[in-house]
Amino acid sequence: MSELLQAGKTSDLLQKAQLAKTAAAVMAKTTTVQKNDALRLISSQLLEEQAFILAENEKDITAGRAGGMSESLVDRLKLDKERLSDIAAALIQLTELEDPVGEVLEQWERPNGLAMSKIRVPLGVIGMIYEARPNVTVDASSLCLKTGNAVVLRGSSTAIHSNKALVKVIHHALEKSELPAEAVQLIEDTSRETAAQMFKLNSHLDVLIPRGGAKLIQTVVENASVPVLETGAGNCHVYIDETANAEMAISIALNAKIQRPSVCNACETILVHKEWAKHHLAELLDALQQQAVQIHGDEATQQYGEVIPASEEDWGTEYLGLEVAVKVVDSVDEVIEHINLYGTKHSEAIISETLENVDKFFMEVDSAAVYHNASTRFTDGFEFGFGAEIGISTQKLHARGPMGLPALTSTKYLIQGNGQVK
Amino acid sequence: MSELLQAGKTSDLLQKAQLAKTAAAVMAKTTTVQKNDALRLISSQLLEEQAFILAENEKDITAGRAGGMSESLVDRLKLDKERLSDIAAALIQLTELEDPVGEVLEQWERPNGLAMSKIRVPLGVIGMIYEARPNVTVDASSLCLKTGNAVVLRGSSTAIHSNKALVKVIHHALEKSELPAEAVQLIEDTSRETAAQMFKLNSHLDVLIPRGGAKLIQTVVENASVPVLETGAGNCHVYIDETANAEMAISIALNAKIQRPSVCNACETILVHKEWAKHHLAELLDALQQQAVQIHGDEATQQYGEVIPASEEDWGTEYLGLEVAVKVVDSVDEVIEHINLYGTKHSEAIISETLENVDKFFMEVDSAAVYHNASTRFTDGFEFGFGAEIGISTQKLHARGPMGLPALTSTKYLIQGNGQVK
Repeated sequence: MSELLQAGKTSDLLQKAQLAKTAAAVMAKTTTVQKNDALRLISSQLLEEQAFILAENEKDITAGRAGGMSESLVDRLKLDKERLSDIAAALIQLTELEDPVGEVLEQWERPNGLAMSKIRVPLGVIGMIYEARPNVTVDASSLCLKTGNAVVLRGSSTAIHSNKALVKVIHHALEKSELPAEAVQLIEDTSRETAAQMFKLNSHLDVLIPRGGAKLIQTVVENASVPVLETGAGNCHVYIDETANAEMAISIALNAKIQRPSVCNACETILVHKEWAKHHLAELLDALQQQAVQIHGDEATQQYGEVIPASEEDWGTEYLGLEVAVKVVDSVDEVIEHINLYGTKHSEAIISETLENVDKFFMEVDSAAVYHNASTRFTDGFEFGFGAEIGISTQKLHARGPMGLPALTSTKYLIQGNGQVK
Repeated sequence: MSELLQAGKTSDLLQKAQLAKTAAAVMAKTTTVQKNDALRLISSQLLEEQAFILAENEKDITAGRAGGMSESLVDRLKLDKERLSDIAAALIQLTELEDPVGEVLEQWERPNGLAMSKIRVPLGVIGMIYEARPNVTVDASSLCLKTGNAVVLRGSSTAIHSNKALVKVIHHALEKSELPAEAVQLIEDTSRETAAQMFKLNSHLDVLIPRGGAKLIQTVVENASVPVLETGAGNCHVYIDETANAEMAISIALNAKIQRPSVCNACETILVHKEWAKHHLAELLDALQQQAVQIHGDEATQQYGEVIPASEEDWGTEYLGLEVAVKVVDSVDEVIEHINLYGTKHSEAIISETLENVDKFFMEVDSAAVYHNASTRFTDGFEFGFGAEIGISTQKLHARGPMGLPALTSTKYLIQGNGQVK
């Protein structure tokens, strides 16, 4: 920061980060009622100003199409009445969730009479770096406000009109509320240089959360000195053990692969015990192929159906589409080794009736979520019952797996004495 | 990592990090009994081989003195029978602490019948980067082993003989134990290049913990892509409010400043309410000066004693010695603003009988530990009753304030189903 100041650059980023930092101190003092009132105001303001938002969004769509943007990306960028009304409804749902701030996590007394307590406090200022979806602008802002934080948003240049419009509307709502409007800041300069400055802004940002593709996340992890909450890749596995119920195993493998193949908790590799394979693998391959799933199988798998021969690369691939790798294995030990070598520590399932193998799998697979006789598709803040989701952490510090509101908080020790000295 | 491999460098670091990673998978399965047995074996092995350790330590001392090392640094580097026996005793104490691994943190059931639980698991591989004190070698290794982790140690070149000897002895003990000896790795190449590689070794390290001076910690924070647990600087404040009991206030301010001025929880600035100042500041200044404390006072303070005029720089200085900055203030609001501007979010105390001001101070001062009527010197894992301390975190992610054993753990979700699909 001092370098930036020395260079005389009071950049847009630095000014806004400073406003956010000042607002964070105010936010930390706000009550649950004040925060929920503000979320309701944002919800109604979004609906009130929807014509403006949709017109600005249209500018991004037009520019995107003119620049040759694919229709699937255009679809991610697009807002319409229905999507806006979903966004507004999500804000109301958020008001119904418990406020984690102020929760007393522990209380104890020391022999010298010091009364100790550990409470939840906001993180402070959260930097969000994300890609084209403009709904993230509202989503991230509202989650940060609910948890008493300020947020500095840095979205994609392709969504800049939409993001500016949404933040303008959020500001209109916050001005009517008891929260500081400065708690939500949008960086309008979407250059790489500004992003790079944001990565290093430890003086103003308490955490960076990247949301988007693997490349974006990798860039942030590799370059940020601000602590990062890494969300991301899911090379998830379903292992069908020797004793797996065939019907259940096929149903879970199919669900984990095809129910929504583009998401991080979808299955990318199915591992099948050689004995189960003898009786049921042909049926499983057939069921997958009937659902138009392309199968990359190892040599043993090739005996049970017509599949593409799998290469070493397949074991490490997150297809995010209707493709899957299949491997026949000798034992649960081989499975654990395979997953810990090729996996991304996200979600893995074992289908088995052998509890000893389940215990081993639960204990030794090093992933955020491990399932017995259920689909990996349940790794999600809503499915876990958290009521909201910031993302799914694939790192081990701070938060692991689906992150609900508490992931946006820190803690603080309050110590009551009566003159104690050491 | 791929770059390192491509360059054909199977460096010492990479080989040892790989061994640690393999060992971490074994460590995660070990029981509390096995881990405690190993700690006891290390304790007795250190005493058994103390002649070897002290002879190797002597080489570092001789080299240090020959290179012009200051006597205070030599003292930090030095091991003797008494220090080794303290280190051995600490290992026995560690066996008595509860093992956080395996603890069930939460359990709940979802409407679809999924039985969810969240348990504590080891972090994996911890990278420790530290300065001259060789006791950190044993301390860090034992804390990591107790929590089921593997550790990659990178100490100072000035302590290399001591560190090699200590790790050799730890390995001797681990070979007799049921833990893998490879769980403790010492990087013998203490070049900057190797440290820089370690900062980026996300493929092998789950967290980096720097222990040492502000400069070391800053270098790690600025350059590491591996998540960092930041410990460090403490610019701690004692605020004496208008209604503070004079005797208590003076006793706490003195204790916080002089009981051990070189540590991070010592007080660096005393803020005094103007009304209290009128009646008691002269006495406080006198008491400090009687203890040889140099005082840097603002203009108002200068009316109450002979002090060095304070400059802007003093408010941000961690003296770590018998020096203190003193400022007269108008209100608790001014205090909160001052601390949040100049502080390092470590530990701050308010001495007051006005509960309203205490509440405000507790709520609005953004530090890891806030005290009412007690000395900041209590911010310490042992004083908090944790029985061990990894360090004092000054960041807000993962752990804040004194870190006990749970700070070296992560979590994992175990989900039991009976065929659930989404």
